[in-house]
Amino acid sequence: MKYFKYLLIIAFSISLNSQNLNNDSAFIDEIYDEALSNGESYKWLDYLSNQIGGRLSGSINYDRSVKWGKEELDMIDIDSVWLQPVMIPKWVRGAPEYAHIESSPGNTISVPIAALGGSISTPSIGISANVIEVKNFKELNNIGRDSVKGKIVFYNRPMDPTLINTFEAYGGSVNQRTQGAVEAAKLGAIGVIVRSMTTSLDDYPHTGSTYYEGLSLNQRIPAAAISTNGAELLSSMLSLNSNIKFFFRQNSKNFPDVLSHNVIGQINGSEKPDEIIVIGGHLDSWDLGDGSHDDGSGIVQSMEVLRILKSLNYIPKRTIRVVLFANEENGLRGGNKYAAEAMLNNEKHFFALESDAGGFTPRGFSFDTSDKEFKTIKKFETLFIKYGMNNFFIGGSGADIGPLKDSKVILAGLRPDTQRYFDYHHAASDTFDKINKRELELGAAAMTALVYLLDNYKL
Amino acid sequence: MKYFKYLLIIAFSISLNSQNLNNDSAFIDEIYDEALSNGESYKWLDYLSNQIGGRLSGSINYDRSVKWGKEELDMIDIDSVWLQPVMIPKWVRGAPEYAHIESSPGNTISVPIAALGGSISTPSIGISANVIEVKNFKELNNIGRDSVKGKIVFYNRPMDPTLINTFEAYGGSVNQRTQGAVEAAKLGAIGVIVRSMTTSLDDYPHTGSTYYEGLSLNQRIPAAAISTNGAELLSSMLSLNSNIKFFFRQNSKNFPDVLSHNVIGQINGSEKPDEIIVIGGHLDSWDLGDGSHDDGSGIVQSMEVLRILKSLNYIPKRTIRVVLFANEENGLRGGNKYAAEAMLNNEKHFFALESDAGGFTPRGFSFDTSDKEFKTIKKFETLFIKYGMNNFFIGGSGADIGPLKDSKVILAGLRPDTQRYFDYHHAASDTFDKINKRELELGAAAMTALVYLLDNYKL
Repeated sequence: MKYFKYLLIIAFSISLNSQNLNNDSAFIDEIYDEALSNGESYKWLDYLSNQIGGRLSGSINYDRSVKWGKEELDMIDIDSVWLQPVMIPKWVRGAPEYAHIESSPGNTISVPIAALGGSISTPSIGISANVIEVKNFKELNNIGRDSVKGKIVFYNRPMDPTLINTFEAYGGSVNQRTQGAVEAAKLGAIGVIVRSMTTSLDDYPHTGSTYYEGLSLNQRIPAAAISTNGAELLSSMLSLNSNIKFFFRQNSKNFPDVLSHNVIGQINGSEKPDEIIVIGGHLDSWDLGDGSHDDGSGIVQSMEVLRILKSLNYIPKRTIRVVLFANEENGLRGGNKYAAEAMLNNEKHFFALESDAGGFTPRGFSFDTSDKEFKTIKKFETLFIKYGMNNFFIGGSGADIGPLKDSKVILAGLRPDTQRYFDYHHAASDTFDKINKRELELGAAAMTALVYLLDNYKL
Repeated sequence: MKYFKYLLIIAFSISLNSQNLNNDSAFIDEIYDEALSNGESYKWLDYLSNQIGGRLSGSINYDRSVKWGKEELDMIDIDSVWLQPVMIPKWVRGAPEYAHIESSPGNTISVPIAALGGSISTPSIGISANVIEVKNFKELNNIGRDSVKGKIVFYNRPMDPTLINTFEAYGGSVNQRTQGAVEAAKLGAIGVIVRSMTTSLDDYPHTGSTYYEGLSLNQRIPAAAISTNGAELLSSMLSLNSNIKFFFRQNSKNFPDVLSHNVIGQINGSEKPDEIIVIGGHLDSWDLGDGSHDDGSGIVQSMEVLRILKSLNYIPKRTIRVVLFANEENGLRGGNKYAAEAMLNNEKHFFALESDAGGFTPRGFSFDTSDKEFKTIKKFETLFIKYGMNNFFIGGSGADIGPLKDSKVILAGLRPDTQRYFDYHHAASDTFDKINKRELELGAAAMTALVYLLDNYKL
């Protein structure tokens, strides 16, 4: 054990002696100054959010964002920019959804819903049925087929407010949305309504993918999210009268896959050009808002990493590549395609960093790597104390870079403050006005600093 | 040195052995659960912000907030609630201000301004004059009396965007607002326009106090804040034509002091009732917004500390007192009065904690105490790691509790994330919709946890 520690210390001191850390610290200061004084990320996001807007896979807006991304990368004058073809799913929401609660014949209160991504349509005249409210699948299965058949299942388990990290609370509730339709259909339900995955009480339905795994086409039932205020109303009415009916109508539809693209740009490495550092986020978004936090922020922050390094005349040792991934939200085809091509071309990925947790004040990074590697990287943490972003921990990285995972690549994710993220996640409220310029820029600076450190690490 | 460390370790281990820290950690979990599940702070702030609104000292709204604060404290069933009389200044803004830039006779562009707190009125027909733009007092003095006389001085030094902590950037710019009128008047200027103290570019003028120290009544000149967009516009027009004129009109006015109150509530200590722990914020706000972040947040968080302790049936060892201070913004009379009365009554204050830096995600606490005391308190930091609030450092505390400072009392301030604070500070945009419920509640929980720890410290 002692011997092992000793080796680590030697290995560390080669690349991380105090003189180096001082130089690193000075350069990181320059990175932050550049990001906060001359940053382009906020202007870029303004355009992406307000001039392009929501950009669901398969939409014309997604293709507009591809064109925009390539043009902007061309303008920062890096070594190469190209489009990587990828087939992506196409699901469309169709005409606006409508839903109401009918407490007695003709006596209705409308509530805000949104079809879940991938959901089939209702019949054009809609669905009206009694409601079974449950908190989880166990409760649903205990109620059983006889009671569920012909009904609409209403999943109403809130995100746990006592979890400090809201992503954990999301993880503890999101199976209602992803698997709820399958579980309800198995018991003969005719539709599914899911409480929106958000920590706030408001009038926005929050969409997101649902899956029909294991169900044949004719077994599938329509599924929609209801706003949390709507869920509270429905639940409170059901507690007074379990006989009330719920009506909803949507005409969402799945189409055959379409051709689109990942957008890629890179600065060639000067010493180890064959070792690739990837920075990225996903260019697609849901259709309800303009995708400013999910994941417009990650896109412009990733682009900004290259711009900052260029503007500081930094010559990278390794090849630094930005990837604007296609189709994270409802397929992950962009991430899968990128990794498959990398394998096909025998590319060696040294480090991959994703930003896909919102454009809020960055608090640190999570790393998906070996304990040994993490132990060494964690020493960089001290360089981030002055920026308040010194929380390095073992955890996930990002969905899009996940498929790159092998025994060698170091994966990481930017970890911003999580408190506000699910207020806007997948909802019409995920818009540019929720972005704070400085918070966005601080994330880009932190990412640039980490990329710089990893570029100089283990040379 | 070694001996000293040894003593510290012994002293620390008496109150902070690992068994205690485990118990503390479990109780702090309960505090957070209560704050996040059953918190009242958000509802309270909704009322204070939306039903009462801006509550400048001397206004009827300030007195409404005193009445509300007392009633709410009465309802949480603590040992005593009372009002402490205090004479406070009364300044009123009067009719809405108006300003324009006149690039040629009759050719005007209006810009948003707001009279600075304490400023005198312009003549009722307003002031029109050429403009001298400067970044600081040195530049102004170099330009000299001959050029400044009869002009309007325009202070246009932005807050430094490269400082990570925006309060530092504020500290580096705010003398333009507080002393700008005095410095300009000395050189014969007839009015002052100050770039708003904010890190964002927008259309809101941000008010705040200006002072006329050393100027007789007839030497005083009117002073107003201009929005940052307005400042950029004015500066850019001046760079093309230094001969343009600026016009502004305001009819703000100072009145004689009026009687109002601090609101105080307390739970009596069970073991050391004579040692007082104070938690507080300031109940007054500027008049432009509804004062949700400055300092409605601090008010409801402080009240929530007592509510949480009561709801968990915690019996404090020391007396725990909440103070809703009067008149922080333009006089500090509430804080001064409270400290003066405490001295008069020979009260012993053991610990005082203020929240007056916005209702954003809490990051830690700053302590104004001896290095020795801080070293010991800093060990509590580990208890806050799981909540991401483990940044304890030596620094300021809060304006209202500042007058309590002596060699014995431990002073502290809640330190939330600072990135968004000055977007709203003293402006019409400081409103309830900028508050995130969870962020507010996390601050109240952190404060309660620290109060609990200090209540059990050095018994």
